[in-house]
Amino acid sequence: MSKLEDIVATAIENTAGAPERRRRAGGGRGGDRGKGRKGPATLRYRSILNTQEPSLLLSEEGLEAIHEASLAVLEQIGMDFMLKEARDRLAAAGADVVAGTERVRLDRGLVLDLVRQAPGPFTLHARNPERNVNIGGRNLAFAQVASAPYCSDKDNGRRTGTQEDYRNLIRLAQSFDVIHMTGGYPVEPTDLHASVRHLDCLSDLVKLTDKPFHAYSLGKERNLDALEIVRIGRGVSAEQLEAEPSLFTIINASSPLRYDAPMLQGIIEMSSRNQVVVITPFTLAGAMAPVTIAGALVQQNAEALAGIAFTQLVRPGAPVIYGGFTSNVDMKSGAPAFGTPEYMKAVMAGGQLARRYGLPYRTSNTCAANTLDAQSAYESMMSLWALVQGGGNFIMHAAGWMEGGLTASFEKFVMDVDMLQMVAEFLAPLDTSPEALAMDAIADVGPGGHYFGTAHTLSRYESAFYSPMLSDWRNFESWSLAGQPTTYDHANRVWKETLAGFEAPALDEAIVEELDAFVARRKLEGGVPTDF
Amino acid sequence: MSKLEDIVATAIENTAGAPERRRRAGGGRGGDRGKGRKGPATLRYRSILNTQEPSLLLSEEGLEAIHEASLAVLEQIGMDFMLKEARDRLAAAGADVVAGTERVRLDRGLVLDLVRQAPGPFTLHARNPERNVNIGGRNLAFAQVASAPYCSDKDNGRRTGTQEDYRNLIRLAQSFDVIHMTGGYPVEPTDLHASVRHLDCLSDLVKLTDKPFHAYSLGKERNLDALEIVRIGRGVSAEQLEAEPSLFTIINASSPLRYDAPMLQGIIEMSSRNQVVVITPFTLAGAMAPVTIAGALVQQNAEALAGIAFTQLVRPGAPVIYGGFTSNVDMKSGAPAFGTPEYMKAVMAGGQLARRYGLPYRTSNTCAANTLDAQSAYESMMSLWALVQGGGNFIMHAAGWMEGGLTASFEKFVMDVDMLQMVAEFLAPLDTSPEALAMDAIADVGPGGHYFGTAHTLSRYESAFYSPMLSDWRNFESWSLAGQPTTYDHANRVWKETLAGFEAPALDEAIVEELDAFVARRKLEGGVPTDF
Repeated sequence: MSKLEDIVATAIENTAGAPERRRRAGGGRGGDRGKGRKGPATLRYRSILNTQEPSLLLSEEGLEAIHEASLAVLEQIGMDFMLKEARDRLAAAGADVVAGTERVRLDRGLVLDLVRQAPGPFTLHARNPERNVNIGGRNLAFAQVASAPYCSDKDNGRRTGTQEDYRNLIRLAQSFDVIHMTGGYPVEPTDLHASVRHLDCLSDLVKLTDKPFHAYSLGKERNLDALEIVRIGRGVSAEQLEAEPSLFTIINASSPLRYDAPMLQGIIEMSSRNQVVVITPFTLAGAMAPVTIAGALVQQNAEALAGIAFTQLVRPGAPVIYGGFTSNVDMKSGAPAFGTPEYMKAVMAGGQLARRYGLPYRTSNTCAANTLDAQSAYESMMSLWALVQGGGNFIMHAAGWMEGGLTASFEKFVMDVDMLQMVAEFLAPLDTSPEALAMDAIADVGPGGHYFGTAHTLSRYESAFYSPMLSDWRNFESWSLAGQPTTYDHANRVWKETLAGFEAPALDEAIVEELDAFVARRKLEGGVPTDF
Repeated sequence: MSKLEDIVATAIENTAGAPERRRRAGGGRGGDRGKGRKGPATLRYRSILNTQEPSLLLSEEGLEAIHEASLAVLEQIGMDFMLKEARDRLAAAGADVVAGTERVRLDRGLVLDLVRQAPGPFTLHARNPERNVNIGGRNLAFAQVASAPYCSDKDNGRRTGTQEDYRNLIRLAQSFDVIHMTGGYPVEPTDLHASVRHLDCLSDLVKLTDKPFHAYSLGKERNLDALEIVRIGRGVSAEQLEAEPSLFTIINASSPLRYDAPMLQGIIEMSSRNQVVVITPFTLAGAMAPVTIAGALVQQNAEALAGIAFTQLVRPGAPVIYGGFTSNVDMKSGAPAFGTPEYMKAVMAGGQLARRYGLPYRTSNTCAANTLDAQSAYESMMSLWALVQGGGNFIMHAAGWMEGGLTASFEKFVMDVDMLQMVAEFLAPLDTSPEALAMDAIADVGPGGHYFGTAHTLSRYESAFYSPMLSDWRNFESWSLAGQPTTYDHANRVWKETLAGFEAPALDEAIVEELDAFVARRKLEGGVPTDF
């Protein structure tokens, strides 16, 4: 109790009077703190329901105008499908393949009939069933940053990634329950040869995490190796794997209006086996898409519908996600911009489009900042605002994304995790039970006085509020005595503490042996072609 | 054009390939930028409509449960009204004043009948009619930070405020159209004697800005001086001033469940003259309110309804605003916390309560950070998220608030202005006209290629997107060559540039003379008592 009494004494002094009362003796704030921060993983974040009704950015008319325009694009202009097998399948389905070209025109009847065959919400299976992820509906799931060519941390700066960087970032992803999946290689491990890199990386994903993961579609062999590794990791038959989607791949259009061979091959390999395909046009307004957000959304929707339709042509009912990734470029420099007001609009409009087709919606937590300054926080928080209010389901790059995706930052990862946890706390329903309404406590205290010592407070104070990992709430004097640490400093401490305490999740020894044998055999066979 | 061609060349290189494409040559980003940032004031922000339908945090049942509990508090527990004149007025209206005490019990019939007499939306008049502010409905208006005992900037650090600091912060408020009002003294000018401080400060508000401002309710004389100064500033008669609300005052409850004498006196002076009263309980969950957010909201709503009812007892139809200021304390240290998930819930629930009574809603842009680091940005952006989606109308402390209100920061002011402008851009309706849908441009470019050179882009690229004042979108190499400036550095530059270019708004010479004469006379009379 004495600790509490000290706190009460400080707190009474610190909170005397509203901040707007002029008589208030300024200066009072909490004394030294930082102790007792909530540790990393906590079960409460293993699944998150978005309790916010999706907010609407587009009017019904605006939504239909974009929908209609995108269908007109597919009918009148069409898209280039840069793989003969794909064009043949489309022609067989009745699409208009322009002879001697890669151009395919799709009429709205064909497109919408195929899109209608896509399932709504589905489950992405993990090797640990407690880590299965529900996709779609009101579910909100977060994947770690993916595909950065560089990584950075406060101590060692920005650099190309190595296997050790890659493994450390995967360990961080495993350490926080609010991260539901990895989303690809958080950083490219350039010290592994490209022909066998996927074998080591996918093997690490099985050993260092028990969460679902992603396979790159860069040639049929990589898809097949990934499918075998996830099957081994889960310890299931090929039949069960096909019945339970357990692997996902991001398919980007080569905007504007093209799908290239590796991406189409990836759809064929993954959808034919009932695995998850995330169709994501990357439509930068002013660069690879029209300079207007509405025009960029028309192109995004045309490309997305064409890709989604193709997955259902490959296998009706195969799990597929509508991905939106429309942002703008800085027209003064040509630099891509993220976490902007235009990005927010595109994210929310994209959610309306995805829901219009009854599909789960993929979007991203983005920022263009070069360091963990205020910009990195407001751009990411604007992204989170838009994707939460806009009904995002499957969130890529949710933690660690910097510089528009060029860098995976260890400190940004931790800050994003803290922000994601705060978002999850915001989405937790507010308790309005009689006990929570606290009529008895209000009567006990009455006018004047304070609530620090009441039974109502004592029974709840330790868990009443979210305790952030990074926010520094010490008063200016205590904070100054501590050397005026910034969020960047606190994040640096937290990822080091987290890695120091990391323990790999349990994995059956037989699975390890089978996995290692498979990887060894495939390496002997030379891995995969690197001429993609 | 050559400039554009350079940009196009850079941009094509920079945006080749989606950030998720593994083959992408990393590293490309915009080259040097920073030039041509949007200057300060821009007319487009002089009034902001919130196009987002308010999001709901409470269920209908939860909302009613809080409403009912707050009425029960006023009926069964009551509040202390620490001014005899107020108790007499309440008794005359039929309230139960407990003999020999300050306690007043109010039955729900009396409270709700009075609250029903409050107007809905109204206009707050400025000396420049272009600066009149619409309050309530879908209007969103921002007031500068107020009442900080300290101020700080990156060059001179944290310090108690002086008249020069006060004036510079007022000049900054005048310089950006997204700041619609000042909200009190942004910092306390401690070099002015308390007995005459309000005369100099209010006189400066007339001379340095043409926006509406606030009067502190700290003794009848201050209210009367402020009313005369705003009348002189507007150059109107006392009758016109009474017909056109032109001054506002923040009334804080002395939570829990008390209104003290100066606040009640302020309501009497201001409401009786049809000026704007902002009733704002400051209910820190776990300190001066129950540790549960629902319980704190019950207390907030009880205190708010009692104060609002009293304004209508003084003058039926007097303009009044429902203020909510519920946050939590860090139960580990007793430090107040702001911009937290709990704060977001309280802000959104408060909006539902205010709308339930048909009243404009006041809330705040808060943070507890000690410096302009990432924390200051995510806590403020979480506040903005909640108040925009929650239907806030009248936003106090919208720019410059740091350390939970203890410090007015010059750099935080600039960053908040940039964030407020981004919020305003997000709320601007998305153009889905045929031209914006860009079908012709999409047909011109077709599959492959890019949009940089199209007529559609050329005619729009300069104004297509919001150009932030602070966000640094240079690539890592250019940013490093520039010395790796952070948002803090950019904000420091912008406020200095803004002050260097400041010009006071035009003011009629006769008004200046009348104002100076009034201030001189009141100073000769000795100003006001300082024993409040």
